[in-house]
Amino acid sequence: FTGSAGAAVVTRDKAAMFVDGRYTLQVAAQVDDALFEFHRVEESGQTTWLLANVGKGERIGYDPRLHSVRGVKTLKAAVNKAGGTLIAVKQNPIDKAWADRPDPPLTKVITQPLKYAGESLDEKCARIGQSLKNSGLSRAVITAPASIAWLLNIRGRDVMCTPLPLSTALIDDEGQVQLFIHKDKLSPEIHAHLGNRVSVHDEDDIETALKALAGQKINIDPNTAAAWYSDKLNAAGAKVVFTDDPVAIPKACKNAAEIAATQDAHRRDAVALVKFLHWLDTTAQSGNETEISAARMLERFRHDLGALTDLSFETISGAGSNGAIVHYRVSEATNVTLAKNSLYLVDSGGQYIDGTTDVTRTVPIGEPTEEMRRHYTLVLKGHIALATIRFPEGTSGHQLDVLARAALWNSGLDYDHGTGHGVGVYLGVHEGPQRIAKTPNSVALRPGMIVSNEPGFYKTGAYGIRIENLQFVHEPSSIPGGERDMLGFTTLTLAPFNAALIVTSLLSDSDIAYVNRYHARVLEEIGSRISGDSKIWLQNACAPLKMS
Amino acid sequence: FTGSAGAAVVTRDKAAMFVDGRYTLQVAAQVDDALFEFHRVEESGQTTWLLANVGKGERIGYDPRLHSVRGVKTLKAAVNKAGGTLIAVKQNPIDKAWADRPDPPLTKVITQPLKYAGESLDEKCARIGQSLKNSGLSRAVITAPASIAWLLNIRGRDVMCTPLPLSTALIDDEGQVQLFIHKDKLSPEIHAHLGNRVSVHDEDDIETALKALAGQKINIDPNTAAAWYSDKLNAAGAKVVFTDDPVAIPKACKNAAEIAATQDAHRRDAVALVKFLHWLDTTAQSGNETEISAARMLERFRHDLGALTDLSFETISGAGSNGAIVHYRVSEATNVTLAKNSLYLVDSGGQYIDGTTDVTRTVPIGEPTEEMRRHYTLVLKGHIALATIRFPEGTSGHQLDVLARAALWNSGLDYDHGTGHGVGVYLGVHEGPQRIAKTPNSVALRPGMIVSNEPGFYKTGAYGIRIENLQFVHEPSSIPGGERDMLGFTTLTLAPFNAALIVTSLLSDSDIAYVNRYHARVLEEIGSRISGDSKIWLQNACAPLKMS
Repeated sequence: FTGSAGAAVVTRDKAAMFVDGRYTLQVAAQVDDALFEFHRVEESGQTTWLLANVGKGERIGYDPRLHSVRGVKTLKAAVNKAGGTLIAVKQNPIDKAWADRPDPPLTKVITQPLKYAGESLDEKCARIGQSLKNSGLSRAVITAPASIAWLLNIRGRDVMCTPLPLSTALIDDEGQVQLFIHKDKLSPEIHAHLGNRVSVHDEDDIETALKALAGQKINIDPNTAAAWYSDKLNAAGAKVVFTDDPVAIPKACKNAAEIAATQDAHRRDAVALVKFLHWLDTTAQSGNETEISAARMLERFRHDLGALTDLSFETISGAGSNGAIVHYRVSEATNVTLAKNSLYLVDSGGQYIDGTTDVTRTVPIGEPTEEMRRHYTLVLKGHIALATIRFPEGTSGHQLDVLARAALWNSGLDYDHGTGHGVGVYLGVHEGPQRIAKTPNSVALRPGMIVSNEPGFYKTGAYGIRIENLQFVHEPSSIPGGERDMLGFTTLTLAPFNAALIVTSLLSDSDIAYVNRYHARVLEEIGSRISGDSKIWLQNACAPLKMS
Repeated sequence: FTGSAGAAVVTRDKAAMFVDGRYTLQVAAQVDDALFEFHRVEESGQTTWLLANVGKGERIGYDPRLHSVRGVKTLKAAVNKAGGTLIAVKQNPIDKAWADRPDPPLTKVITQPLKYAGESLDEKCARIGQSLKNSGLSRAVITAPASIAWLLNIRGRDVMCTPLPLSTALIDDEGQVQLFIHKDKLSPEIHAHLGNRVSVHDEDDIETALKALAGQKINIDPNTAAAWYSDKLNAAGAKVVFTDDPVAIPKACKNAAEIAATQDAHRRDAVALVKFLHWLDTTAQSGNETEISAARMLERFRHDLGALTDLSFETISGAGSNGAIVHYRVSEATNVTLAKNSLYLVDSGGQYIDGTTDVTRTVPIGEPTEEMRRHYTLVLKGHIALATIRFPEGTSGHQLDVLARAALWNSGLDYDHGTGHGVGVYLGVHEGPQRIAKTPNSVALRPGMIVSNEPGFYKTGAYGIRIENLQFVHEPSSIPGGERDMLGFTTLTLAPFNAALIVTSLLSDSDIAYVNRYHARVLEEIGSRISGDSKIWLQNACAPLKMS
């Protein structure tokens, strides 16, 4: 199975695989169904399966390096309830059997320039160390590669679509870091960059380092750290404190340099986007292009910028009914043409050294129906309500989620995904801890946090609509006639909405003013970077909406 | 201290009282400040005080009959952290010292007619018993008097403003109830009403009854039940399961008969309200009326209906700057006139045998300023957004809260209270478990739940604005062009908003349509019950808004 996510349980006489909706077809094509049952994890995950299938007295092994502290707790509760026992294995039996396993990635670590990072690793480490001291913690185990990359101002190529070196780190309450990483990844320049703050150790030395922490209070994030770390710490006699990764919120709150850098990246990315939207609105109107050819065209426009280091995720290129599949990834088997009188949804992003982009646009091929236009406009109304809201400090994403849905709800419609996720700066296109969704989230939105704003509507078997911009939380500021300074969002993404899909009579005056203001800004910030037919197309696409 | 809520901690050498914002003046007037420190509980409650003031090794007593399970847990954590010990006292030292203590209330229990309750006590008990069985529970201790009143279709007069008999009950998984209540409260008719489902016992017999539950799984609501109950159950060898009161959600979801009854009560109450609003708009414009005279006038209009059993809470009658005090209760000391060119806020309600009302209106005395009108209109926009939202099943109140605030937030304003609380049918004017507020609430809004919709704005030292209607959640229903049935609200309260305070240019077309639709409904449902000048006034007050 070559999917990017999945889990399996193997017992003596049966076995099951658990994949999400993206991979239900793929798992059936790649895995032998005489050996494995297949389950969709959204419907019935491994916990449910264990509860139903483990017999009294049975012993179930797990590899503590592959399951988070929280994950093991959940599995253990299920296995115990079924009358069995969950036991950590010393060696993973898959590793023993896997003869032709590829070597782990071994790409060179590079530094993230200070002009983009905005804060030296020395300052960051001192800041995180102080936060540990304030919480009465001696040290934290940092296992999230993105947290280490941010903390040390380093990047790498070990992971597809996210510029991460794989490594582990310990940081103490003085801000001194032990970095556990394969030495071949580090050049002399990186050693110089890491300086006195960071001592470099071989990956395998982490076990010895954990053993030396007897009696210390050590922070571990139970949601991201593998259970192996807390097992080792407990065995060593350390006091494990399960709280959030101390780097998560500092990383999420971008400083001025990071915001300026990602704004540059977004302006650059917008040039590729505008050329692609122009191509969609002209060449692709032939009805002969396909989801794959369109995705390649977009990738080519991004490559042509000369600054793309990677895509930020595999492009979602969904024509017609494929657009209604929220996690659709095109393959040769599912590839369809961008047919006449249909909608095309494209969700994509680029990794640049100064920022990470993520944008979704929906465009008509041929003539859209009135229903398509109405649905697009309802999605747009939600997008605008969330883009323009001002809110007091202490507000969390779940409080704002309804703004993106109200127009749809009042029309008997909804979408079954979150409204906004965090985004890094030349890091992960999905990062926490902030989130805009129906489910409560205790992390308030703070200045500098980047979130997506991506309401949608999906008509099963017919078409999908999603409109996504990235936006960051700006500092609280006063409002004329107001009493309290309010936070708000500044949009990062710069690409026109599709005017042909907008029913202006469904928009309020302030909705229309927003669209016109945004389009004027797109033209102002991008226009000078574009020429020829694409420039003329952009000028038309950004023309003020006519009142209906 | 005669306030309705407060707490005290007394140690050998110092003592403190904790009251909420309603009582900060009153506590200082009534309690000797040479003996007690005074604290506002919103700023620093007893937990904080104990943490700071308990010395190592000190033993702090508490009466487990006066603190909930959850409350004791919090207090215990604070005292332990300070190095002391919290110890349950056998007898409350206040009870020993309190020589002239009044007898507990002893009012007659009456039945709640089936035509208003809509479900017999037999059916209700069977339903709750089944829910216990489904959860694997043997029995539940029901300590909330409103839960018992609803379950057994009884009411009483033991408590001011809420028609409750004080009692305790046990219900088993067959729906058999043991009711512990002073026998003098029960007439032969009530005994007949309680029938075979309910065995009646003296109040003090609850202790013996709890002792008999060894080995059983017993449900206790840790937020409402006194710690005494779980202490006794633990001592008896029962297995205490801390989950919500099993009656809370069934009680909150009103059936068709309860909804019809409370709609009748609201139409009746509206007649008094309209007469009062007419009086405010004419007589009270003299500038000579006071907060007290106005509250009495409103109470008289309600009494004149001939059906009022009690107010549902002490009327909040706030003129000018007093209106900006959210929990204001008028007293002779604070009473001011309804002065010219000011706003008057009145939040009030009645208890009727068929329903409980709670309504807030804000009216100008003399000429309102443009600022007052703008603020009133922003509050009204929030009220309308929440009144008209449609939403999918599974939606909780915290998801909708922002709808009532968005217009204010976008103007740099907010209010520091919740947006909506549950309301009973001839029961408490505040009931859970649903709530509309900023803080997350895991209880979804379900059909039949009544909630208030009461956004406000308070200009400190100047005026207060609040607009409150009650509304109930209607069944999911389809929307033309929609795919999913959506829940929504139906408004119960029937009284015009104040057109003189509305800036129509700040309203959307759909806002204006809502106000006109609501006013037409008020006139249609109430007009025939009102005559003379009040009828003419109502017709004018309900005239369609003119576009600005």
